[in-house]
This record gives sequence, structure tokens and C-alpha cells, in this order.
Amino acid sequence: MSILRGAPRPLRGLIEGFKRLPGIGQKTATRLALYLINQGAENMLELARSLEQAARHIKFCEICHNLTEEDVCAICNDHERDHSIIMVVEQSNDLMAVEMYADYTGVYHVLGGFISPLDGVAPSDLNIKSLLKRLREDDGIDEVIIATNPSTEGDATAIYLHKLIEPLGVKTTRIAQGLPSGGSLQFADKATLSKAIRNRQ
Amino acid sequence: MSILRGAPRPLRGLIEGFKRLPGIGQKTATRLALYLINQGAENMLELARSLEQAARHIKFCEICHNLTEEDVCAICNDHERDHSIIMVVEQSNDLMAVEMYADYTGVYHVLGGFISPLDGVAPSDLNIKSLLKRLREDDGIDEVIIATNPSTEGDATAIYLHKLIEPLGVKTTRIAQGLPSGGSLQFADKATLSKAIRNRQ
Repeated sequence: MSILRGAPRPLRGLIEGFKRLPGIGQKTATRLALYLINQGAENMLELARSLEQAARHIKFCEICHNLTEEDVCAICNDHERDHSIIMVVEQSNDLMAVEMYADYTGVYHVLGGFISPLDGVAPSDLNIKSLLKRLREDDGIDEVIIATNPSTEGDATAIYLHKLIEPLGVKTTRIAQGLPSGGSLQFADKATLSKAIRNRQ
Repeated sequence: MSILRGAPRPLRGLIEGFKRLPGIGQKTATRLALYLINQGAENMLELARSLEQAARHIKFCEICHNLTEEDVCAICNDHERDHSIIMVVEQSNDLMAVEMYADYTGVYHVLGGFISPLDGVAPSDLNIKSLLKRLREDDGIDEVIIATNPSTEGDATAIYLHKLIEPLGVKTTRIAQGLPSGGSLQFADKATLSKAIRNRQ
């Protein structure tokens, strides 16, 4: 039984909608729904329109699976960029972070996640086939930078990709792992500190 | 400058939409938007429809300002309930909690918030006029239970209401404040413990 037993049906529907979002439970969903209702109908319709716009106009780039409004994203279409280097990332927001904070001028390939048997994510659920196709069909690719996250799953995915790409004669590299800039040995976790020492340059 | 500089416009629009919700900043908004996009268009359209339904069909009860799909809510329309007692609450979810967890058979009045000069919420921003009108026009009301939250603002709002209602000759009561059931003196805060001792029965 729920606190919402006697609540109007559209309110319960909205709460159910919010509850499907990650990290949002019953209480937060209720709070968000009531907030929007108290803000008035126009606010709800505005968010509804944003969702519709996103649903209708956001596509995945045919080449790299980055988010785009066109068939091919602005990065893949940019001939000033270095198309001989492909950086493989898990998600579009990883790509956005690299674009924002790093001086990277190559192109990308967005996997759409990481291999995680426990969550039922097999290699076939990721954009791996299209990556191999790119490497096979384009002789001009010299290097694949595997920039999956430095987590257990990200590392495992990196190893998997390395094994697939190596036979194609394309160099693979992995982004460095160690202490974050401005970090402190004192507060580093065991895995980070071990890697920082092992990968010393 | 933002990580989303190069992101498709509808994605940025969706993130801006989520950011307007309480407690959701740039990072969470981006995570929610990307989650929905990865889940596919149908999921976004479903949430959009829930928002539209809520925007078009949820109204505030003409009598008590509770959320309803009709002009008058189910509780105000229920002649089995005791219409001689009105419980004043801050928000609709407070009303829902009482309906769910307490054996209360009276009716309600939803203020729509609490008096908070610092947040720019004056008494005139709350549904206080309509409460006084109910009390003036209906001779059958014997008691007003002021059930605003036991916070500084909720207490101040309660005192304000008490002063307004007293001259009308209607009894006002305040919900009890003390230690929560299952609580422990050891972990109680100063205000709660003081009140629990002062209000001993």
C-alpha cells in the first residue's frame, strides 16, 4: 500500500514515470511530481516538450554512435580533425568530457556502455562490430585509444577490445591510470596507488 | 563553458528542463537525459505523456486545495467524513501521509506551503483567505487542527493561523511534538527533547 492510494490518477502516473529514472525512488519521484504540479501546468508542458524534442530529433551518429541531430555527427563530419586516431569511450558524456577538458583532435567511437555479464551486458550489446568494421574498411586508422573508464568493467572491456583489434594490425593504447592531478597519496585507494606506482614513468 | 558545448540542441534543452527540478543539478540532469536517450524514444515520449496528463487533468480542489481531477476532491465530497474538523497541512503530500498512516476522518485544508519571509512567502501567498472563508461561512466547524510541520517556519505559520482563527470562535489545536515512536532520548536533538519534556502528559 502506498501513500498515494487516494491521489489523482495522473499524479500517480507522473510519479511512476519519474520512478523509472535511475536513482529516483518513490519519495524523490513524489517530490518532483508535486513540485511540478505546484509550479503550474506550463512548467510540466515545457518539460514534456523538451522530452518530445529529444525523442524526435536526437539520433546516434551512423559512424561513431555519438549523439547528433544529423545522420553523421559534427565530429565525424569535421575534416580538420585527425581521422587516423579513434578514441573509444563508454558513453556520450565521456566524449563530451574529453571534448571539453582535453586537447584531443582525433575522432571517437561510443560503445554505449561496458561489458558486464552480471548486468546482462554482453559484447554484442555494445557498438563493437561497427568499430571493427571501421578499422577493417579504413586503412588510414593508425591508433585506437581505449578510454573506457578505469573501473573493473571498463578495464575488462579494454582488454577485450585490445584482443579483438590487435589482429587487425592497428595499434591500441589505453588511457593512463594513476593519481588524479591535485590528488594525494594519503587519500588514494589501494587500486589507484598500486597502479600509480606500477605505471611510473 | 559547459561540457555540453557541442551537444545536440535537444539534449541541452532536455538537460535544462531537468535542471529546473528541485535538487537536480547539471550532473544529475545530464545523467537523466542521457539515460532516457539511451533507453530510446518511446520512454521519453511516455514520460512526456505523463507530464501532459498531469498538466491537463490535475486541479486543486475548490474547497480544500487538495489535488484532484474534479472541481471538488473526493475527501470534500465524502459525506461519511466528519466535516466539523478541518486539518490544516502545508502540502498535498502531508495530507496523503495522514490519509495513509493515521485514522483521521475529518476533512483538510492545504495551505500550499508555509510562511517564510526569507523565501519571499507571505501569508497572502498561501491558501489562508479561503480557510477563513470556510470557517466564517460554515457554522458546523468545531475544530481546526493545525498540522503544519514541526519546523521553525511550520510553528510560526501555526501561531499565525491560531491568531487569525481564534477571534472566529473556532477551537484550534496543534499536532503534538515530542519524541518519535521508536526513537531514543539519546539520539534526540535539543529542540525535540525540550519539547517532549515540556509537553509531558
